[in-house]
Amino acid sequence: MEIKKVNLESKLQSFNEYWSPRVVGKLNNQLVKIAKFKGNFIMHHHENEDELFFVLNGKLFIELQDKTMELCAGEFVIIPKGVEHRPYAPEEVNVMLFEPETTLNTGNINNNMTKFDLDNI
Amino acid sequence: MEIKKVNLESKLQSFNEYWSPRVVGKLNNQLVKIAKFKGNFIMHHHENEDELFFVLNGKLFIELQDKTMELCAGEFVIIPKGVEHRPYAPEEVNVMLFEPETTLNTGNINNNMTKFDLDNI
Repeated sequence: MEIKKVNLESKLQSFNEYWSPRVVGKLNNQLVKIAKFKGNFIMHHHENEDELFFVLNGKLFIELQDKTMELCAGEFVIIPKGVEHRPYAPEEVNVMLFEPETTLNTGNINNNMTKFDLDNI
Repeated sequence: MEIKKVNLESKLQSFNEYWSPRVVGKLNNQLVKIAKFKGNFIMHHHENEDELFFVLNGKLFIELQDKTMELCAGEFVIIPKGVEHRPYAPEEVNVMLFEPETTLNTGNINNNMTKFDLDNI
């Protein structure tokens, strides 16, 4: 397999859909994803997977049970498995995610926001 | 364990040593590290670990057996296990690394650049 670099800005320009992560890398059974968020997501947790949210630009809010976190570009947070969380973004935010291949975006919830087959871009 | 966000810029300001990764996060038996590189590293490979280099600022070169890659801020590359690589940086570059907990910076080589016990910052 050819080793290629990934330019996140150019990958971000290739789609517009919100709450629909794209896969941009795979290593050690983990996926690197990027996503655009705007508006409200659902409260959920992941039974077996810790999840990293890294903000590339914009501002991301993550509501937890006892507080709400606010993340700007260059900041990340790791949400441990089992922890309820709800991402939201009043304005568009672009994020990079690190998580195991098994991770579903809506965790323990299946609804119309659930994405089963993510595009590799 | 309290969930805290990590600001990479402020973590980067907390150390100056080159080629000495610091651990800034842990998830799913993987580590998130940051490092400052300047000058030449050694050619090496990792027997069992794929390794991701994400450039935060500056310019990173990675020499492979058949080409040399040049990465700028916002770009990453995944070096699969077994692949010989040599990072170098004529000027300081700051990078984020994503790799399994078992990963040694010099891979299959043990020398005076090998770092065994990484600081958590």
